[in-house]
Amino acid sequence: MSNPRQLHFNAFLMGCGHHSAAWRRPGSSLEQLGDIGYYESLAQNAERGLFDAVFFADGQSVGDVAAGPRWFFEPLTALAAMARVTNRIGLVSTVSATFYTPFHAARMLASLDHISNGRVGWNVVTSMFDAEARNHGLEAMPSHEDRYSRAAEFIAVALRLWDSWADDALILDRAGLFADPARVQPIDHAGEHFRVDGPLTVPRSPQGRPVLFQAGASEQGRDLAARYAEGIYAVAYDLQSAQDYYADVKRRIAAAGRNPETVSIMPGLVTYVGSTEAEARAKQAEVDALLPAEQSLAQLSVFVQEDCSGWELDAPVPPLAPLGDFSGPQGRYATILRIIEAEQPTVRQLLGRLAAGGGHCTMLGTPEQIADQIELWFHSGAADGFNLMPPLLPESLDDFIDEVIPVLQRRGLFRTAYTAGTLRGNLGLERPLVSLRR
Amino acid sequence: MSNPRQLHFNAFLMGCGHHSAAWRRPGSSLEQLGDIGYYESLAQNAERGLFDAVFFADGQSVGDVAAGPRWFFEPLTALAAMARVTNRIGLVSTVSATFYTPFHAARMLASLDHISNGRVGWNVVTSMFDAEARNHGLEAMPSHEDRYSRAAEFIAVALRLWDSWADDALILDRAGLFADPARVQPIDHAGEHFRVDGPLTVPRSPQGRPVLFQAGASEQGRDLAARYAEGIYAVAYDLQSAQDYYADVKRRIAAAGRNPETVSIMPGLVTYVGSTEAEARAKQAEVDALLPAEQSLAQLSVFVQEDCSGWELDAPVPPLAPLGDFSGPQGRYATILRIIEAEQPTVRQLLGRLAAGGGHCTMLGTPEQIADQIELWFHSGAADGFNLMPPLLPESLDDFIDEVIPVLQRRGLFRTAYTAGTLRGNLGLERPLVSLRR
Ligand SMILES: Cc1cc2nc3c(=O)[nH]c(=O)nc-3n(C[C@H](O)[C@H](O)[C@H](O)COP(=O)(O)O)c2cc1C
Ligand SMILES: Cc1cc2nc3c(=O)[nH]c(=O)nc-3n(C[C@H](O)[C@H](O)[C@H](O)COP(=O)(O)O)c2cc1C
Repeated sequence: MSNPRQLHFNAFLMGCGHHSAAWRRPGSSLEQLGDIGYYESLAQNAERGLFDAVFFADGQSVGDVAAGPRWFFEPLTALAAMARVTNRIGLVSTVSATFYTPFHAARMLASLDHISNGRVGWNVVTSMFDAEARNHGLEAMPSHEDRYSRAAEFIAVALRLWDSWADDALILDRAGLFADPARVQPIDHAGEHFRVDGPLTVPRSPQGRPVLFQAGASEQGRDLAARYAEGIYAVAYDLQSAQDYYADVKRRIAAAGRNPETVSIMPGLVTYVGSTEAEARAKQAEVDALLPAEQSLAQLSVFVQEDCSGWELDAPVPPLAPLGDFSGPQGRYATILRIIEAEQPTVRQLLGRLAAGGGHCTMLGTPEQIADQIELWFHSGAADGFNLMPPLLPESLDDFIDEVIPVLQRRGLFRTAYTAGTLRGNLGLERPLVSLRR
Repeated sequence: MSNPRQLHFNAFLMGCGHHSAAWRRPGSSLEQLGDIGYYESLAQNAERGLFDAVFFADGQSVGDVAAGPRWFFEPLTALAAMARVTNRIGLVSTVSATFYTPFHAARMLASLDHISNGRVGWNVVTSMFDAEARNHGLEAMPSHEDRYSRAAEFIAVALRLWDSWADDALILDRAGLFADPARVQPIDHAGEHFRVDGPLTVPRSPQGRPVLFQAGASEQGRDLAARYAEGIYAVAYDLQSAQDYYADVKRRIAAAGRNPETVSIMPGLVTYVGSTEAEARAKQAEVDALLPAEQSLAQLSVFVQEDCSGWELDAPVPPLAPLGDFSGPQGRYATILRIIEAEQPTVRQLLGRLAAGGGHCTMLGTPEQIADQIELWFHSGAADGFNLMPPLLPESLDDFIDEVIPVLQRRGLFRTAYTAGTLRGNLGLERPLVSLRR
């Protein structure tokens, strides 16, 4: 049998889970959020499930501390610890191109690639909030355009820094050279945003270059992903929007002169698994019921720009204005209209959907039902894999690993053992070679 | 028995050892420099020796890659990994106040303090080389004065960020608040160098504040240490210069309104331990002999600003001009004159002394001889402990742990078990408390 195309899975780790009320459940992992051992065990579970990688998002401002956990560990330090209790799973860290210097980012990621023996990925983001900017010396975020122009140069510099040590630069000759100076070269970069002479302080790392991930949604975000990303975290509420995004970004990748097949597009995916569909629905309803009604309605009022405080929680959502008549931020509002159209939810159900994954897809049901949907997305030009966003941690991740993964394996859609020792290898990517000689 | 004053020991980890020819020895750890397991085992050894901490220096430029290993791992990521295979030993990372932002530094160190359960220290440096500046967007290093003014503000901001979460901010009430917003406060810092709103993204860490180390030698460096440092890495070639530095810095600490007894001054210390003095000398001579003569003489020519290429290696050092007549950089030249005066070395011996620790003290001999000298320094106002700079790693560190530590323990000068779970506790420092209420 030739090598059939295989799914890729990424486990997006987030506190007690991606549902914003997850921490409120009795017995939730709330008390373990400051214990790195908790994240280590999540990574070990994901490795048991043969996931390509675990992934940490990151932000530089704290948000509303009353409403729930947001950040705790800084991702690079957390992943360094987690690297030492896992062997095969990839470790993807978000690092903001807006607030780091490329030298710091390239150096830390290369160091982590050595520590993990070649399992590091970098989710390049441009950050979002003025509160983040105000922790790093700015009054407000630079414009979207500025951020993306900086990010493009940032990535280019990081790649050159990683390539500044040839693969064969270390000589280790006790009677002669430690490294060959002809194979360790400055990069002498002087661009619009950065001046970086190089070379890096860290010798070439096991993967050559850590794997690049990106999650941009805008035109500029998609173009940056097309140019550099080797894995893409997408946002798609349903099959149609996933197919649209997939086709658009694959086209852009080709237009950028790269092979679209080498870039995995992974939409976010929230799952509730049950032995029956009713059991899965009950799991969802149980955590939805923990949402503090007043706060959630207040947040909804912001999203739909009308006063929802009087809405009946267990009644259907009242009619909303069509998208064309809405003057606030479009993205979230469009998602809300789609949820209403597709599911005719009660107000409480709508709040639950927004509280877990927001605009990302939710798949719910028996393992077979979920595997069917995954297979459909995978075979109809919507996804090369998924960025699993477990609503409850560790439970939803374990359910997926124990129940859904075996079904996908039986169908020949997912590996039954890791095929490589590096993240690059498991994603089917080639290791770039560098041989510098002056 | 009341609590007699106790020595503190810090293990300064550096590649194959602090002797610049250490990597050239047959059987050296050269091939392990890219293996984090090597550093983990060094930290485990130091923990077996009940050291207060292991310590990584750091630089942002690569230096001469032919001459030997300089940097490899980035310290914060390396120490995060090492935290997970050790339990009690402190983990001190150098972080440059010239090239980071205080928010990044405070956040990573706080994260590491959680990961290690309260064992993190921060060696605050201002960096040294233009090549470092050119990796971070500058043409050259800012002036010494600028760097120290920035460093002082940098530390003040980091401390306030660590204090931005009260010790009792986390409520973890599933039916109510995750954290109490009244106990998580912005810092709203706007100074000459930084604008940082805060609060930090990381809740208060086990030590409250990671322990501050500093190694400044200049007036400004000493004043910064006096104001903030809780441990000081000193450079002292001999007892007299150690006493001078010790008296001066303790006086400055008192003048800054702090208790000098709470700040440990730890001169760097290179040791060669043997069962006889001759055996110790042989160990030293063996590694000195591996110095590549031509390169070392070329470097010496720079230090003394005359052509040394014709100097006979096994003859005494030719007469040099007195310090007053020397126009080059004074510090290193003064050290060379003192070495010559104290030891009448051959040229090869001088090169060896400069190759291991430079201006730091070397103690050589039997365990008892070394313990005698340590005791003398400890009891004559020269040191509160030592920053051990093993010339050969792992051997010199193991020799010290296995041979010298037991002698010091028998003399009641060094603990026989860790007295606390945190670095702060083992250094005898109090944990600062923060209780914010709006
Ligand atoms: C799965 C996923 C994870 C993301 N993680 C982060 C993150 O950790 N930090 C961040 O600032 N932005 C994050 N983003 C936001 C994206 O990087 C991007 O800014 C966003 O999708 C909007 O697209 P645009 O920047 O092209 O307008 C994430 C987005 C997605 C879909
Ligand atoms: C033991 C020790 C370790 C040091 N480690 C570093 C380091 O890792 N990075 C660095 O830039 N400087 C390092 N330094 C340099 C000092 O921070 C300081 O710059 C130097 O002693 C000169 O003093 P001054 O800055 O007050 O002029 C170290 C110094 C000593 C004694």
